[in-house]
Amino acid sequence: MSTILKGIAASNGIAIAKAYRLVEPDLSFEKTTVQNTADEINRFKAAVSESKSELQAIREHALQALGPDKAAIFDAHLLVLDDPELLTPIQDKIRDDQINAEYALKEIADMFVTMFEQMDNEYMRERAADIRDVTKRILAHLLNVEIPNPSMISEEVIVIADDLTPSDTAQLNRQYVKGFATNVGGRTSHSAIMARSLEIPAVVGTKTAIQDIQNGDLVIVDGNSGDVHVNPTPEIVDEYKQKQEQYEQQKAEWAKLVNEKSVSKDGHHVELVANIGTPNDLEGVIKNGGEGVGLYRTEFLYMGRDELPSEEMQFEAYKAVLEGLNGKPVVVRTLDIGGDKKLPYLPLPEEMNPFLGFRAIRLCLDRQDIFRTQLRALLRASAHGNLKIMFPMISNLDEFRQAKAILLEEKEKLVQEGVQVSDNIEVGIMVEIPSTAVMADVFAKEVDFFSVGTNDLIQYTMAADRMNERISYLYQPYNPAILRLVKRVIDAAHKEGKWAGMCGEMAGDEIAIPILLGLGLDEFSMSASSILRARAQIRGLNKSDMEKLAEEVLNLSTNEEVKEHVKKVLSNS
Amino acid sequence: MSTILKGIAASNGIAIAKAYRLVEPDLSFEKTTVQNTADEINRFKAAVSESKSELQAIREHALQALGPDKAAIFDAHLLVLDDPELLTPIQDKIRDDQINAEYALKEIADMFVTMFEQMDNEYMRERAADIRDVTKRILAHLLNVEIPNPSMISEEVIVIADDLTPSDTAQLNRQYVKGFATNVGGRTSHSAIMARSLEIPAVVGTKTAIQDIQNGDLVIVDGNSGDVHVNPTPEIVDEYKQKQEQYEQQKAEWAKLVNEKSVSKDGHHVELVANIGTPNDLEGVIKNGGEGVGLYRTEFLYMGRDELPSEEMQFEAYKAVLEGLNGKPVVVRTLDIGGDKKLPYLPLPEEMNPFLGFRAIRLCLDRQDIFRTQLRALLRASAHGNLKIMFPMISNLDEFRQAKAILLEEKEKLVQEGVQVSDNIEVGIMVEIPSTAVMADVFAKEVDFFSVGTNDLIQYTMAADRMNERISYLYQPYNPAILRLVKRVIDAAHKEGKWAGMCGEMAGDEIAIPILLGLGLDEFSMSASSILRARAQIRGLNKSDMEKLAEEVLNLSTNEEVKEHVKKVLSNS
Repeated sequence: MSTILKGIAASNGIAIAKAYRLVEPDLSFEKTTVQNTADEINRFKAAVSESKSELQAIREHALQALGPDKAAIFDAHLLVLDDPELLTPIQDKIRDDQINAEYALKEIADMFVTMFEQMDNEYMRERAADIRDVTKRILAHLLNVEIPNPSMISEEVIVIADDLTPSDTAQLNRQYVKGFATNVGGRTSHSAIMARSLEIPAVVGTKTAIQDIQNGDLVIVDGNSGDVHVNPTPEIVDEYKQKQEQYEQQKAEWAKLVNEKSVSKDGHHVELVANIGTPNDLEGVIKNGGEGVGLYRTEFLYMGRDELPSEEMQFEAYKAVLEGLNGKPVVVRTLDIGGDKKLPYLPLPEEMNPFLGFRAIRLCLDRQDIFRTQLRALLRASAHGNLKIMFPMISNLDEFRQAKAILLEEKEKLVQEGVQVSDNIEVGIMVEIPSTAVMADVFAKEVDFFSVGTNDLIQYTMAADRMNERISYLYQPYNPAILRLVKRVIDAAHKEGKWAGMCGEMAGDEIAIPILLGLGLDEFSMSASSILRARAQIRGLNKSDMEKLAEEVLNLSTNEEVKEHVKKVLSNS
Repeated sequence: MSTILKGIAASNGIAIAKAYRLVEPDLSFEKTTVQNTADEINRFKAAVSESKSELQAIREHALQALGPDKAAIFDAHLLVLDDPELLTPIQDKIRDDQINAEYALKEIADMFVTMFEQMDNEYMRERAADIRDVTKRILAHLLNVEIPNPSMISEEVIVIADDLTPSDTAQLNRQYVKGFATNVGGRTSHSAIMARSLEIPAVVGTKTAIQDIQNGDLVIVDGNSGDVHVNPTPEIVDEYKQKQEQYEQQKAEWAKLVNEKSVSKDGHHVELVANIGTPNDLEGVIKNGGEGVGLYRTEFLYMGRDELPSEEMQFEAYKAVLEGLNGKPVVVRTLDIGGDKKLPYLPLPEEMNPFLGFRAIRLCLDRQDIFRTQLRALLRASAHGNLKIMFPMISNLDEFRQAKAILLEEKEKLVQEGVQVSDNIEVGIMVEIPSTAVMADVFAKEVDFFSVGTNDLIQYTMAADRMNERISYLYQPYNPAILRLVKRVIDAAHKEGKWAGMCGEMAGDEIAIPILLGLGLDEFSMSASSILRARAQIRGLNKSDMEKLAEEVLNLSTNEEVKEHVKKVLSNS
């Protein structure tokens, strides 16, 4: 039966394909006593053998599709499945304790995992992860539940999941994954940002996609409207195929603007730049006509590793981005770790409210070893392009002064060492904490630029966790409170002859862009895939009209009123 | 050796007494195999027998000191210690599984606890709690560690703890507890608020009090400076005895102001009112010359119970407060639950950032059954005094409009039912979310009053969890960002002929009061114990001078600059 789920449009475009559920299976079990331990041991052996055949197939497929590097992971898993040091004690335990295979497997495997994890040896710690993966697979066979194998996907699919982590996404074969729909998340969740970066249509926050969609169901993901159709009628499929075509045509129109200026009808120029996470993202920036990078999130350099990245390694990454942009501006945000972003080698105390916690500049001013290494790498890279340095989570002037003093100290040291450092590095801050927006006039005297981080600014100003589904209605980018704070920041910058940008989601939003243009925002930083659409929009607007629009919406009372007013004005123009 | 710990001054006054550590013992143990199970069973029996003697002593003491009601808890515990249904299977398990007593005790007890907790019967659920308490006590004897018994305190002590929960505090005998010092917490933590309400000197957030202080150490708690002296020299003790006397004298001076007006030197009148939690707090309000209640936290009515309080029960509590105040204004805040305040009978999903989550008005607008019951009780009580209703955590105008509409609906229903309801109930909001402070001009057209909740307003504006020790330096009440927002709220109210109050910690703060007076704050709501000191301070200030001071500090850059400037001005006046 044809049904529609309503979610949040997270990444534009339309995808039509069969559903592939990427869902963690329920591997819970009870401890039970078994009488016939020989039978139980046979049941265990059968599960091991089934796991082995399955892994061999996966390995074979990975070798063909992804190459020997990715296949090697499964070689390691197959070795574990042949290891008598693991398998024998499990069988002994079933026999001696007269317990079920699930329990014996879990007990013995957990013991090995704990043992390996405590070793001061990277190789052994990786073994722990292998054992954990293999245990899961055997357990699934014992319990007769299915483990999804995303690397086995070999036809076009739409991935259905509760949420997608960065590592889930890394495993997906982009050739076959045409779109995805998740139960949780909002426009600013990691999965949504990832989808836009991969330019895959996505709908997040459907609440029930994994309950309502079965493997093999035909699914339409409409990343423009937020609708997900399950088993649509042939008429609906035809309709969406047309929409898909129209969208492709529109994209082709936008693509013509790749070398055009971002200039309003009445000749006001703004900068449309990109948010990136790694040097690999540069390709998308250039393809989409980005005029630079407004936010280089350096966290990715620190993730998926076992230790802090060295100064040299960071230098290479920063240099690659600066050289890749060929003189265009690159705003690098210093480490924004903590909160929901944790590093395995940097244990931080559990916090009751991590979004209001010890993170970003707060952590860097405390762990100056980490901060200084990053600043040195940045300073050294500055000779290779147009670098601007930006500090995240600044909440008061003392923090900015301290951070800048440390930067100048490191610069002085490098100069003493004879290292070449640019003399024109602008130093600015993210404005993502309400206190800093309120004090923008005071900050503007000391910083070189502002970049409004709306994702956090909205969540703090409204006191509403943007990841929390129950209160997602309070993530209100058009609330006049937010717009007033943004105006305050822009006005304060201009009064001191500085520039103001924005690197939150809002900068690429079709309702927000007219207002921001009217408020005089100088730089709009967004997903690279949004730049051409934004450029097309701005080229169709008169700045003077938008100034009037901005004035009008600042005097409205609610988020909804602003949204309706902008829509009305846009549709009349 | 005499040492000093530095903490946060949480409740004024000086206490000198022996330390009493209220610390959860470490009850962890390993599972081990025992050869001689008969010995192990005897060890278990001995621990049970020791627990029994100990509990009998506690019960006896509780009966004398606290009466039969409190002693009955220990009767229930003693019954558990005699229950063969619990004790026999433990002994069987030690024998059959050849395991240590600790493990057998824990396994069997946990099983009973789980079983009882799942029963739909309040009596049985209470048994689960009894078993858990008794298990802890036996375990402590098995492990030879001490469990503190606060109800056994029979001499003057200073309680040393990691933190004090409301239930810890309820167990303390106020006659003997002269002060306390904790490792964690800040000026706005529950333990600090509790200390001020009990008028017990307290220092919180010392970080190491439980590590550095042993039972029986002589301790001085200086709740004015935040210092905690451990085993001070006789000279220091003498010095503090003098300070204690001076403080008592000063309090006697302040007490003379109990019936005086809260009026500045140049004749400007403000209202000094109290924050209360229960009708029991009224005594303190009246004793300290409170001119009303600026914040009645209704959460306490909902806590320590097994089900929602009925309309009737709430009505009685509200009526008692209104009648007790005899026509003086009483601002009642509607239910502010969620976040760190949970109710056992109202299960809420775990949240990653509860302070930015589903709480207060957000929850009430969703659970209208709960909200309407409270509003009906308030409306009925309104006939008995001067009631004002205040909604917490308002972040946008839609929420206020919805809440007020529900209030008017319930009022209309009551009027239809012929119930007497006051026609002069002011309806206002807490301003504790930055968006609402920014939009105060819009709100002022629709609300009857504002009350600035600085505890939350500061934490959201600075994006810093006020309970998180690592970033407690970011809880900056004097940051000009906060002061500017407060000014915005006051000015917006006055422009529309409304009044503005403050019910956060800041309203009673000696540095903040001069600024707030200068900004034109109409109502200061604080711990009752702070009212007389605040009155004395205000009677010594000229409002016109403070207006100038307020203007000066609004143009400063940092929290520290403001603090220093106010101190300088105060010391020169």
